[in-house]
Amino acid sequence: MNRERKPHDIEQLRKRLLIAPFHRWLGLNLIDFDMNELVLEMPWRDEIVSNPKIASAHGGILSALIDLTGLYTILAAGGTPRATIDLHVDFHRPALPGQLRAIGRLVKMGRQISVAETRVVGTDGALLASGRGAYVCE
Amino acid sequence: MNRERKPHDIEQLRKRLLIAPFHRWLGLNLIDFDMNELVLEMPWRDEIVSNPKIASAHGGILSALIDLTGLYTILAAGGTPRATIDLHVDFHRPALPGQLRAIGRLVKMGRQISVAETRVVGTDGALLASGRGAYVCE
Amino acid sequence: MNRERKPHDIEQLRKRLLIAPFHRWLGLNLIDFDMNELVLEMPWRDEIVSNPKIASAHGGILSALIDLTGLYTILAAGGTPRATIDLHVDFHRPALPGQLRAIGRLVKMGRQISVAETRVVGTDGALLASGRGAYVCE
Amino acid sequence: MNRERKPHDIEQLRKRLLIAPFHRWLGLNLIDFDMNELVLEMPWRDEIVSNPKIASAHGGILSALIDLTGLYTILAAGGTPRATIDLHVDFHRPALPGQLRAIGRLVKMGRQISVAETRVVGTDGALLASGRGAYVCE
Repeated sequence: MNRERKPHDIEQLRKRLLIAPFHRWLGLNLIDFDMNELVLEMPWRDEIVSNPKIASAHGGILSALIDLTGLYTILAAGGTPRATIDLHVDFHRPALPGQLRAIGRLVKMGRQISVAETRVVGTDGALLASGRGAYVCE
Repeated sequence: MNRERKPHDIEQLRKRLLIAPFHRWLGLNLIDFDMNELVLEMPWRDEIVSNPKIASAHGGILSALIDLTGLYTILAAGGTPRATIDLHVDFHRPALPGQLRAIGRLVKMGRQISVAETRVVGTDGALLASGRGAYVCE
Repeated sequence: MNRERKPHDIEQLRKRLLIAPFHRWLGLNLIDFDMNELVLEMPWRDEIVSNPKIASAHGGILSALIDLTGLYTILAAGGTPRATIDLHVDFHRPALPGQLRAIGRLVKMGRQISVAETRVVGTDGALLASGRGAYVCE
Repeated sequence: MNRERKPHDIEQLRKRLLIAPFHRWLGLNLIDFDMNELVLEMPWRDEIVSNPKIASAHGGILSALIDLTGLYTILAAGGTPRATIDLHVDFHRPALPGQLRAIGRLVKMGRQISVAETRVVGTDGALLASGRGAYVCE
């Protein structure tokens, strides 16, 4: 990743991410970011399971990851996202126990509305879910 | 609601809903359903907060509610949803502390793919989020 | 439909609808509206066919109908939609030759962002496609 | 683009694309493709205008491009898409007169459901709209 012209310090963004109680519950860890991309990791926890037969994560957890990673991708790129307008998520494979990695990518930085897309992958790199959020900016 | 021709007993569906550990964590309660509509309630819990300044619920929690309510709406109508294909959520207002109510409505029961839409309202009845999921059926 | 408190005259909205060259090409006809719902009809034309084996309409035409019907639903309800932010469309059945009817319904009238959902039905009333648009308002 | 292992000949795909009367009306031209990406071009035509003040293209036309480019991206990669399940489109900027270019990219090739995303750019390369479709495969 390109470390030039970052409007935020990584420690500053990490602290901001963990202001949200739900993000603390998810155990999110901001790994890295640049002006176009941001990477987060989330450890497994048993409360997120949807189907106990295969111990797959609930779609709502993957949706939360895609929503929040998109917002932080825009923030990290210097945008001022205030709220998610809407979210679209495609579910590709069951997310089985193990760390989840979310990779956000800036699609469009707008004055009023910005869009980012996020992929969620498992420990083997397989694509589990992907989607995009539109965010209203101040 | 029309109580005719229900393919499921409410106690049976309540039990099935709570097989998922994440649904138990959310504290979901199935209130009622018929062939077209299904109503769930979810109590507040402090871990779901996104913005601690206003104590609003995380968009991922609202997305989870819309995803799972749609799936149970189809199930309650006699469908056999196996997994969510994709999910679209519009966020309308911050979800402030208080019980959340999700009302699912069948859009299309298909042989291979079914669609349901869900509204999430607060204790005052205000629309907080709404959206739709597409589900692959067996 | 409730004819009270309409902020627009139907002839005025019909004229506005046909300012768009693409709407004239589609041959749109505004049938009726109130503060919550708006109904448009569109005649068939052979250029809109996607699959010539069954003569089904192209998904882009159904998407156009869902986009524009949502915008006019908000306009008819007294909103000031300036542009579509994003659009989600579910395709339910092939749209075979015959008049198409689009029924828009207001989901949320917002100060900055409004949402409407639209169903497209065939001459037999069967649901062909449905979806929702988010619109930025002035 | 990588010209290896293409399951289709470009002339064969060009012919198939133009079987659809609506694709002929749009004047689509398949430029190139490989196993991950496909590029189409579409000339301007005055009937596609939505807002005659700025002569911007209708969102339904951009939606059609995103829908069909995604389907052909999956087809070109060896998939067998039969129909679009659903479509999500973000509109970024007005599409002013000039050739439109659509670039599709494979997100997930599935046995039953495949997903592709498409960007539509203007002659200056500016991103006008982007989105993703889910397609049911045989």
